[in-house]
Amino acid sequence: MADNEENEIIEHHDDEEMERRGTQRSHSQSFLESVTSLENDDHNSTQSSHRLLAYSDALIAIIATVMILPVAHTKFQENEVKQELKESIQSLLTTKVSVYLMTFLIVTVAWAAHVRLFQVIERIDDTLALLNLACMMLITFLPYTFSLMAAFPGSVLGLTFFCACVIVIGLIQSYVLLAIVIFLPYISLSIKWIWNKAVGDSGQVEDTDPVLFYNYLPSEPLSKERVEAFSDGVYAIVATLLILDICEDNVPDPFVVKKEFNGSLLSALLNYGPEYLAYFGSFATVGLLWFTHHSLFLHVTKATRLMGLFNTFSLAFVGGLPLVYQLTNEFPRGSRNELEAVQISCVIIFFAGLFQLAIWIVGLFNERETLHPYVRYGGREHAFMLAKLSLYPCVALGTFFSTCVLSRFSAPIFHMMEIGVPFAFLLLRLLVRAGLALLRRLFCPVRPDVDRIPVEGDDLQLPINDSRNLG
Amino acid sequence: MADNEENEIIEHHDDEEMERRGTQRSHSQSFLESVTSLENDDHNSTQSSHRLLAYSDALIAIIATVMILPVAHTKFQENEVKQELKESIQSLLTTKVSVYLMTFLIVTVAWAAHVRLFQVIERIDDTLALLNLACMMLITFLPYTFSLMAAFPGSVLGLTFFCACVIVIGLIQSYVLLAIVIFLPYISLSIKWIWNKAVGDSGQVEDTDPVLFYNYLPSEPLSKERVEAFSDGVYAIVATLLILDICEDNVPDPFVVKKEFNGSLLSALLNYGPEYLAYFGSFATVGLLWFTHHSLFLHVTKATRLMGLFNTFSLAFVGGLPLVYQLTNEFPRGSRNELEAVQISCVIIFFAGLFQLAIWIVGLFNERETLHPYVRYGGREHAFMLAKLSLYPCVALGTFFSTCVLSRFSAPIFHMMEIGVPFAFLLLRLLVRAGLALLRRLFCPVRPDVDRIPVEGDDLQLPINDSRNLG
Repeated sequence: MADNEENEIIEHHDDEEMERRGTQRSHSQSFLESVTSLENDDHNSTQSSHRLLAYSDALIAIIATVMILPVAHTKFQENEVKQELKESIQSLLTTKVSVYLMTFLIVTVAWAAHVRLFQVIERIDDTLALLNLACMMLITFLPYTFSLMAAFPGSVLGLTFFCACVIVIGLIQSYVLLAIVIFLPYISLSIKWIWNKAVGDSGQVEDTDPVLFYNYLPSEPLSKERVEAFSDGVYAIVATLLILDICEDNVPDPFVVKKEFNGSLLSALLNYGPEYLAYFGSFATVGLLWFTHHSLFLHVTKATRLMGLFNTFSLAFVGGLPLVYQLTNEFPRGSRNELEAVQISCVIIFFAGLFQLAIWIVGLFNERETLHPYVRYGGREHAFMLAKLSLYPCVALGTFFSTCVLSRFSAPIFHMMEIGVPFAFLLLRLLVRAGLALLRRLFCPVRPDVDRIPVEGDDLQLPINDSRNLG
Repeated sequence: MADNEENEIIEHHDDEEMERRGTQRSHSQSFLESVTSLENDDHNSTQSSHRLLAYSDALIAIIATVMILPVAHTKFQENEVKQELKESIQSLLTTKVSVYLMTFLIVTVAWAAHVRLFQVIERIDDTLALLNLACMMLITFLPYTFSLMAAFPGSVLGLTFFCACVIVIGLIQSYVLLAIVIFLPYISLSIKWIWNKAVGDSGQVEDTDPVLFYNYLPSEPLSKERVEAFSDGVYAIVATLLILDICEDNVPDPFVVKKEFNGSLLSALLNYGPEYLAYFGSFATVGLLWFTHHSLFLHVTKATRLMGLFNTFSLAFVGGLPLVYQLTNEFPRGSRNELEAVQISCVIIFFAGLFQLAIWIVGLFNERETLHPYVRYGGREHAFMLAKLSLYPCVALGTFFSTCVLSRFSAPIFHMMEIGVPFAFLLLRLLVRAGLALLRRLFCPVRPDVDRIPVEGDDLQLPINDSRNLG
């Protein structure tokens, strides 16, 4: 990766170098042109867009996820009310949660447009980088306009802001697109023509490929790197959202400690015990969901639209995790609200895992396009992947039903689940191997290599078959 | 980059494949071993660590920056007090800010240790990925223990927690290091020996290089990619910290709008006007500082320790930006507090930019190791880089002194600066070109190619000299 990028930059600067000289000494131009046949026109410093894209992905991921915060913090304000009303959580949160989901989808759509744009553009210059930042700024403003719309459904102002943002983003992006894709080749050609007319030398007009700055493949699936970077951003911010609250609210006030706990810091901190547990539980769950996502995308080469959509759904559910973990620890032990909070947590984990599984299944349906060749056979790696991806949905489902039955012990069951799952992941490879060995012994006791006969003739298999024939 | 990673994964899975077959049919093993001479022992699936590192970088960056939030939110609580006491901001914030800076440095040290560890480890497996997540979880807990220490200097508890975290992190990391670097080669060799004894075939014991999993270069400078990823994370979270607050606090309450503004949403929103401006200003400043950082690291190949340190300092100041931008808009127009807030903003921007400049200067001192060859000459690109990096320090210094003189207009001057700087960046290349042309005309009117004579004989220059001699 480093090498690749380095090469690009060195190339670019070779011709930067070249251009610098070229403007001052025209008779060495033809020589330099033959050394590196890169762009020779006036836009002078282009760079690989890799880091710009990574930064944009991080920004958009944070913005998409941030809208869960108002939802989470509403609960704090209604802390007192809640005790008296004993109202069901669901009815309290529905509008807020739907606003969260809608903004998440809207921001993700903006991200997808950004991805498409930069699939066309391959190299950037300074102006483009600055325009991209302006675009980012407007995208970060989208959630706010949307929450205005949700708070004031009667007013047309929120909608106006929202539309204005979307239009300006569209204008910037299409300006960039137009400027780069459509006009630039003509401009560069005409500049070259004028240059050649003016300087007068060289029969060497070798038409340098105008397809340098961009690379237009409209039906290409989403690039894997950007889906990964965006997902990483979401997972990272979700994993740390709870520590934001812990750092802010859970450092006890020295006066309170002195007055209520006789100066004993330890007993004051024990008061916050459940929240630490919630933090570690949420961090571990998000971390492990990231881990399965990471394992999944090791096998993926390209993401189709449907896979991108399922990924977005999975991320939207992941974004809800800090909220419900917080809820879990806000209610008194054994109350109906606690049970509901635990069950909502299970449902969210279930769907987050299920959509990851869906990505894998969609990938399998288009395996020629989307997966690495080695996972197509259906061997052990395949089974292992399936086990990894179905672990969370299964565990969440199990926890859900066991809390339905043993509703008094919902919180302990949930915490046991949290503690158990990481160990399950550690032992998963052993378990899968044991399970497959068992299956093999049960179903094909005579010919142990039945499952290895290639389903589709693949050239990777050929040398092995040969050696088998020889042996 | 994609290709590189793909190759690695394909390689790894080739031998995964190989291993799967190998366990079942030993007579084809020797053939397969000759196909790919990668690891043949029992730890079965290794992966490129690239994405794991990117995720870790994002997590640590968020954690490092998050501690500014308690500082920023203290001000909200003291909103009422402030009006009466007219106390100077500096005295209010010093302890909080010092806690922020200390945690930032501590987390950065943890990050640097993580970087060193993964300069040794090149490939990971699932267990390692899970251990890394556990390590991350503890690192995210560090700021909290530190703020406990700061709040209760008398109690030994905070210190105990802090030390416990550090020790456990150290244990995990050194466990990983020991396991991988020291024991693994022996384990793998002995397993291979046992395997060969047990299976009995093959004189082909070709000692597969044990230096596969790791690559130990203790004095190597920090890798550029990880410094970039960490910096990106910090810039991204800082840029969006203000929108967190805006989304939470600045959606007006429908009841208030109906009561106080006669139902006019627009006039209610105009109330928040300054905060939007603060958001856009802060986003633009952080974005442009990211932009200069990005331009700077395009020219850097490796970061020395000192450059890493300066980068950390620069990032720590950047982390302070949301705080002061918020302050700027909290005080009544023309008050002494407003002037102080604006001046603190200028100081922070000044230092953030200055440390970036320092990175560049340190890089120039070790240019053989750290910079790309093409920036060593001192030509136009060099001057342009210098102009880019010194723009923010100069502007901040100018704003600072002009607010000292025209203290009544501090806020308008500051906002003008914010609006002007992006345009300055857009026009910078033209300005630098014009400036250099002017300098050339002034100082070397006779020989226009004086500045292009190579300072140190570099082979890149040779062909051009040749062609000049020929022409």
